Amino acid sequence: MDLPPITDPASYLARHTGPDAAEEQTMLARVGFSSLDELVDAALPTDIRVTARPQTGPPLSETQTQARLRAYAAQNTVLRAFYGQGFSDTVTPPVIRRGVVENPGWYTAYTPYQPEISQGRLEALLAFQTMVSELTGLPVANASLLDEASAVAEAVGLMSRARKKGRKVVLDARLHPQVLGVAAERARAIDLEVEITSLASELVGEDLCGVVIAYPATDGEVSDPSSVIRAIHDRGGLATVVTDPLSLLLLESPGDLGADIAVGNSQRFGVPLFYGGPHAAYMAVTDELKRQLPGRLVGVSIDAEGAPAYRLALQTREQHIRRERATSNICTAQALLAVTAAMYAVHHGPEGLRAIAERVHDRAASFAATVRETGPELLHDAFFDTVAVRVPGRAQEVVDRLAEEGYLVRPINMDIVGVSFGESATEEDVARLAAAFGAGEVRMGEPCIPAAVARRTPTLTHPIFRTIHSETQMMRYLRTLADRDLALDRTMIPLGSCTMKLNPTAGMETITWPEFADIHPYAPDRQARGWLALIGELEGWLAELTGYAAVSVQPNAGSQGELAGLLAIRRYHLANGDTDRDICLVPASAHGTNAASATLANLRVVVIATAEDGSIDLADLDTKLAEHGPAVAAIMITYPSTHGVFEETVREVCDKVHAVGGQVYIDGANMNAMTGLAQPGRFGGDVSHLNLHKTFTIPHGGGGPGVGPVAVAEHLVPFLPADPARADATRAVEGRAGVPISSTKYGSAGVLPISWAYIAMMGSEGLARASASAILSANYIARELQDSFPVLYTGRNGLVAHECILDLRGLTQESGVTAADVAKRLIDFGFHAPTLSFPVAGTLMVEPTESEDLAELDRFIEAMRTIRAEIQEILDGHVTYEDSVLRHAPYTAWSVSRDDWDHAFTRQQAAWPVPGLRRTKYFPPVRRLDEAYGDRNLVCSCPPPEAFDFTATPEES
Amino acid sequence: MDLPPITDPASYLARHTGPDAAEEQTMLARVGFSSLDELVDAALPTDIRVTARPQTGPPLSETQTQARLRAYAAQNTVLRAFYGQGFSDTVTPPVIRRGVVENPGWYTAYTPYQPEISQGRLEALLAFQTMVSELTGLPVANASLLDEASAVAEAVGLMSRARKKGRKVVLDARLHPQVLGVAAERARAIDLEVEITSLASELVGEDLCGVVIAYPATDGEVSDPSSVIRAIHDRGGLATVVTDPLSLLLLESPGDLGADIAVGNSQRFGVPLFYGGPHAAYMAVTDELKRQLPGRLVGVSIDAEGAPAYRLALQTREQHIRRERATSNICTAQALLAVTAAMYAVHHGPEGLRAIAERVHDRAASFAATVRETGPELLHDAFFDTVAVRVPGRAQEVVDRLAEEGYLVRPINMDIVGVSFGESATEEDVARLAAAFGAGEVRMGEPCIPAAVARRTPTLTHPIFRTIHSETQMMRYLRTLADRDLALDRTMIPLGSCTMKLNPTAGMETITWPEFADIHPYAPDRQARGWLALIGELEGWLAELTGYAAVSVQPNAGSQGELAGLLAIRRYHLANGDTDRDICLVPASAHGTNAASATLANLRVVVIATAEDGSIDLADLDTKLAEHGPAVAAIMITYPSTHGVFEETVREVCDKVHAVGGQVYIDGANMNAMTGLAQPGRFGGDVSHLNLHKTFTIPHGGGGPGVGPVAVAEHLVPFLPADPARADATRAVEGRAGVPISSTKYGSAGVLPISWAYIAMMGSEGLARASASAILSANYIARELQDSFPVLYTGRNGLVAHECILDLRGLTQESGVTAADVAKRLIDFGFHAPTLSFPVAGTLMVEPTESEDLAELDRFIEAMRTIRAEIQEILDGHVTYEDSVLRHAPYTAWSVSRDDWDHAFTRQQAAWPVPGLRRTKYFPPVRRLDEAYGDRNLVCSCPPPEAFDFTATPEES
Repeated sequence: MDLPPITDPASYLARHTGPDAAEEQTMLARVGFSSLDELVDAALPTDIRVTARPQTGPPLSETQTQARLRAYAAQNTVLRAFYGQGFSDTVTPPVIRRGVVENPGWYTAYTPYQPEISQGRLEALLAFQTMVSELTGLPVANASLLDEASAVAEAVGLMSRARKKGRKVVLDARLHPQVLGVAAERARAIDLEVEITSLASELVGEDLCGVVIAYPATDGEVSDPSSVIRAIHDRGGLATVVTDPLSLLLLESPGDLGADIAVGNSQRFGVPLFYGGPHAAYMAVTDELKRQLPGRLVGVSIDAEGAPAYRLALQTREQHIRRERATSNICTAQALLAVTAAMYAVHHGPEGLRAIAERVHDRAASFAATVRETGPELLHDAFFDTVAVRVPGRAQEVVDRLAEEGYLVRPINMDIVGVSFGESATEEDVARLAAAFGAGEVRMGEPCIPAAVARRTPTLTHPIFRTIHSETQMMRYLRTLADRDLALDRTMIPLGSCTMKLNPTAGMETITWPEFADIHPYAPDRQARGWLALIGELEGWLAELTGYAAVSVQPNAGSQGELAGLLAIRRYHLANGDTDRDICLVPASAHGTNAASATLANLRVVVIATAEDGSIDLADLDTKLAEHGPAVAAIMITYPSTHGVFEETVREVCDKVHAVGGQVYIDGANMNAMTGLAQPGRFGGDVSHLNLHKTFTIPHGGGGPGVGPVAVAEHLVPFLPADPARADATRAVEGRAGVPISSTKYGSAGVLPISWAYIAMMGSEGLARASASAILSANYIARELQDSFPVLYTGRNGLVAHECILDLRGLTQESGVTAADVAKRLIDFGFHAPTLSFPVAGTLMVEPTESEDLAELDRFIEAMRTIRAEIQEILDGHVTYEDSVLRHAPYTAWSVSRDDWDHAFTRQQAAWPVPGLRRTKYFPPVRRLDEAYGDRNLVCSCPPPEAFDFTATPEES
Repeated sequence: MDLPPITDPASYLARHTGPDAAEEQTMLARVGFSSLDELVDAALPTDIRVTARPQTGPPLSETQTQARLRAYAAQNTVLRAFYGQGFSDTVTPPVIRRGVVENPGWYTAYTPYQPEISQGRLEALLAFQTMVSELTGLPVANASLLDEASAVAEAVGLMSRARKKGRKVVLDARLHPQVLGVAAERARAIDLEVEITSLASELVGEDLCGVVIAYPATDGEVSDPSSVIRAIHDRGGLATVVTDPLSLLLLESPGDLGADIAVGNSQRFGVPLFYGGPHAAYMAVTDELKRQLPGRLVGVSIDAEGAPAYRLALQTREQHIRRERATSNICTAQALLAVTAAMYAVHHGPEGLRAIAERVHDRAASFAATVRETGPELLHDAFFDTVAVRVPGRAQEVVDRLAEEGYLVRPINMDIVGVSFGESATEEDVARLAAAFGAGEVRMGEPCIPAAVARRTPTLTHPIFRTIHSETQMMRYLRTLADRDLALDRTMIPLGSCTMKLNPTAGMETITWPEFADIHPYAPDRQARGWLALIGELEGWLAELTGYAAVSVQPNAGSQGELAGLLAIRRYHLANGDTDRDICLVPASAHGTNAASATLANLRVVVIATAEDGSIDLADLDTKLAEHGPAVAAIMITYPSTHGVFEETVREVCDKVHAVGGQVYIDGANMNAMTGLAQPGRFGGDVSHLNLHKTFTIPHGGGGPGVGPVAVAEHLVPFLPADPARADATRAVEGRAGVPISSTKYGSAGVLPISWAYIAMMGSEGLARASASAILSANYIARELQDSFPVLYTGRNGLVAHECILDLRGLTQESGVTAADVAKRLIDFGFHAPTLSFPVAGTLMVEPTESEDLAELDRFIEAMRTIRAEIQEILDGHVTYEDSVLRHAPYTAWSVSRDDWDHAFTRQQAAWPVPGLRRTKYFPPVRRLDEAYGDRNLVCSCPPPEAFDFTATPEES
């Protein structure tokens, strides 16, 4: 198979690929090959190479791609969205759209694991947590969760863990159908009994670990949850309240009403409908539950100079540490959208948000009063934004008539229409909507919030919500925050297993086109023809590229893709009567999320040992298969392996597992090493998930959005995720059927045009070439650095795949310099660190990707060699570890230019270790974080402004 | 008239206004008033206040505004543009659209007069100059000019100055009609004789100062200009060649063919059609002519440490210095578009550009071969991108038929259709276009470039055009450059007379919508209905706000607005038989552009003295009127004055001038002080120009685009700019008619939605309030700083208008610290300097605008007071001027953190003078520029990479 040279410098393939032809030759020569083909032949096991290139159509130019996407967009029909059901019309302030959603400084950033270069987005996420905490009246909120439905599932899991004696959970029948659909099945998957009943007034039943209460209800009803909360507390259980954050400007907070947990979706805080996502869901909990909170939690700590600094708190809760003891598999989780929602709250402030909430409520009340006057009965007199109107037998007729007038409303059932008001609803809208129900002149409505739940406690009291009111201030605030961080728009982010590569602007531009962004997820198919065509084509391409029979894009994160895949396997076995197959084999080197997902799918994890060379220990596999054979549900492997190696034995491993009746799950995290070159669906996989935010160029967004499509072989197709809005949650799903995994059928649909554009522009030959380039770059780095740092594992011919592990352990032992020291020191060179201590503690895993040009690779190599020389100074006894420049890295601009300087090394050695920095230098805003301090003193909302008071004159501070 | 408090915090008025209600009260109290109304009453002369608020409709929200603009956009019909005539289909690379055109870091920057905080855009503009120089084969190019037509006018002016003996210029009849229309009248305005004749082969005539040759011609013909160039040189004249830069990839450069000057439009280097503009035109000249080059010229110099650094070169050529001896009035000149075009060249590189040019040519050749085969005659066999087809009597029919198929082609006349190929033309386009001429199967065409002019010399040889090939590299390069600069997205830019205020994102977002951006300027009106409606409404609003009868948005810069206004006055007098009125009275304090524009309108400038209090010296005015009465064409005043004061006597001045039969030109540069409060058309003005890039929120773009609409009273309406495309250039315009001023009827139409949005969102009451806020902010600063620096001029009640002049002269005399030292020192506080030494040498003019919040104003005040304290240290004898922190400012990060430090002050004093910098600190990339060095050693193209070689270890450098 040929990987010909890139001939058209204006092709997207050429734009996407970092090294040009000459650079590629230089790199190949250094690695010892004459062509990419030769390299790939040497690196990739012959028995997995594709024999026929997957077909995704000829590569398109950027212009052609955008023209195709415009044609798809034109097939969508944007109605004014009054549908509700968890997704509301909202206005993204243009300054935030441009400054965050469309700004590579924000969207190309990685998850803030390296806090020193992430202070900007950590501050924004902390504002999100503070906002959620203040709105919900609960002290600790995370940032963030994937969608409301899975957030409720997480809450149920949390309640069942915290209250182990109850094995039953009551879900309010008045929750949104998609929430019930997902949460009920997720609860059943962990062997909880699920009861679905209305919790409008009282609670019955025993053996309960908790309840989930809708507040407001899916049909708009607002009722006081207090008595149900008291009742569950009396029974020793916990109460989760599912809320609409905008309603909480007018409704008393769940916390003040006694709730233990509040969850919801922050979409209507300025995030477009996006045909279902991405949107940031949230969870807030009582102090008692804070250490069990799933998802990421930003906390406040101090840096090495004692200055306040942010970082992810309580990281030991994370699944990559806890593995099979994990209680959640949430990783990537909508950070970019959480930032957007937080900035929306900052932009509007409490008065502005309250004004929006009141306007929304006034419109709904006016609509209700007008409709009620003329005839149709309303289901409820107490509501926030949604009015349910009884039109017996005529619901669809009303919906269809309004569609012709340009309005999207919700047919709750054959007899009831729901009309839900959003931020941009006008008086004219009220009149036109009411007229469709036969109403006459618009009347003013009395407020319809019951006194018992009217908001009394103040909210958004923190100064951050009261100081930035003008557009100029917001523009500068967004820039200031972004400038504190390192993202792909300034530097290579060589993160092993995370594939931080170019996010094509040609694709990025399209996601905020109104014809894509403003489609409600439950709009009827005829209004979403363009979306359906695009998604169908993308799913087809992904199936073609992976060699599977079908793909579902519903999982809105890699973790959810894993869960969906494992649930499909589990349900397949059950449908075959294999009820005892509940073991998931996981190699010791696996990403922690694998084990966590297995646990959530109610599979028992059995670990397979790693052989000397880093590959799966076949002997141990044989032993485990012999021991557990009939109980083996699946093996979960990553290919190429998490050690960055193309293992020779992958087909053998697959065959062995198949031989005992197990299924093979191949984690697609490393698909960037083999797209177009090898297909997991053809070399042994039954299921894979992909990470569109890795291989397929959706940006990481500082920690999400992600998309984790699940790809399955023919026999598993019936078990792909079901449509959550059509689920009947009251009974467990049975037989040859899938369960829903996200709030909406297509998950984070809004970002799919990015991957569509990437595949369309690359073509499958281009994709293959990109994989080969990624392999070349990793091997180039491995080769250039091997004399400085040993490369831990290699495969055939001494080659790595698309990443390599630099082993620091020996140097650490000799010098004291840790991998973390190196990671922090790289900041002084303007680099984001490689993946730290995964999959092997004390190492750095480097994945350069195909998008980095040779100069940038060489800049990284220069930095690493310089650091190696700094280590040598210690080894040679010229300096002690404690006094070394490495031990104290990184250095702020302040620290190297303040008058006092008492280090053993010089300012120049600290800040300007290589001459190239003279042209472009990044200074982190803080010194090295004190992680332990923050966990000991857990603060997870914005500190007061005084904390940053530098008005003590510089000399004094 | 009431200026009520802002009640809706979500209104655009609230978003636009920096101070919120509480801050406003604080500021009012400090200035000594209880309300904005009271302040305005005290500051503004009663006799000019509006009695009825101008009406521009109720204020709209951002959402409503974008909805209205979407409706306008939907009324435009985007055809595939094969029209040519100077404007071509091109593809803006998405990474450049997002990274430059849609990035506030680029578009909110000011003209790079302060080079230390402008190194990024200066580098980009230098790349533009290098690109133009290499393409045209001439050593010195500027950056940039306004449009091709006015660029040719500038070239004619240059030739006539350089070759004073010839009083006649020959314009090639094959130039684009709009170029002839503008250039001929501009030449006649300075009393040159104009001959228009085809210069396809030979030159006749004597007494010539120069010729302007089309290469290629408007109908596509490519002929060798060498013989005409030799002929004019033989006669002692100069040769200007008008070129298409893309054609120069295939055509030999004008410089190599002997031309002295090359001009053209860089639009097709990635800049959207924009319905006519903004686009950057260019001019390149021989070494002999470089010091006469109009427009801005970026040059390379060194900083105080000897490092290479960019700055505007030869600034003494600028009109604000030369005034009535100026030879051009070009100031603001499309910098943002020049950056875009330069980055397009960087992105594609020489091979990429050549490939685009070849593809364009191949398509044209294929079309020609196909059409020729079947019948219709072609006008020319030699062409680059444009094929003229003879279809006797049927041109319009063909054009209309193709319009139905979605193609826009050019009816050159009744018998000839021009088809011009652009970057995105496909083979399918060739087939469909050829079919419309009755042609059959598409044939390949032989190349149609005559051997005599085929490109032989290499181009774009500089490494900058050969190192950035991937999208990642471009994204980072754009960010790196932007990060070197200070723009409005990071700091207040308190520039007197330049009104650097918020550019609303809601307006900015709309300019790149394809329905606006992709309309060809000569598209028939029926395809541009939305544009026409929007422009008509905007012109109406501007007339209403200024109190004039009509407005034309055609002038694409303030300078062009001035020229258009003065030409209207001049032509009005001529039409009235007042042939001797050729004197323009200009106050001594006037902006230099005023005098320059008067000179270009062939008016003699007579200066009116300034009175003690800074106002116009009425006695001197009387004297000059008595002396010149019947010869007075006009007075040109600025209101409020360039001293930042509402002069009490403005009505009296107007009346006096009117009394002698003169016209009153009121420069609208300071309109931001009185929009909605006073109307120049009602208090004495006959003409004004506005600066939409000042008062009406079009961003400055680092030195353009600008828009300078001209507003006139009823009697001058006939003299408004004419449509350049319909001009008959062969005879001088006579009678009651205007002359064209720009290449297209609506000038820089593409950015007009920004001003439309601003006015729509503010409403006239909001505009009045903004003016009042601007007055408040200026007076607040004046009050807070008056104890530190004397405020030079004040008006009624000791108040300034919207800006104030801080007088440094006394302090300079006592301490040696100059206004320039203060300007440079402000950089260390993260500020762009105020206007330096204008209108009074040795002063700083501060205009805060209404968009800055109190905290930012106070930050500026703190900086200025700190600087005053630093001056005091010198005055008190604690430090000498030469050793002072002021003398050596600004300080780079490198300079304050390198190991050696030998200043008398400390590093902290240099870099961290106030504690607030600890939160956000900007470091300039270079130390203070050595201006004289650069002018002595004029280098105006990119230096070689070795110039930036810091690989000498830091210790050595």
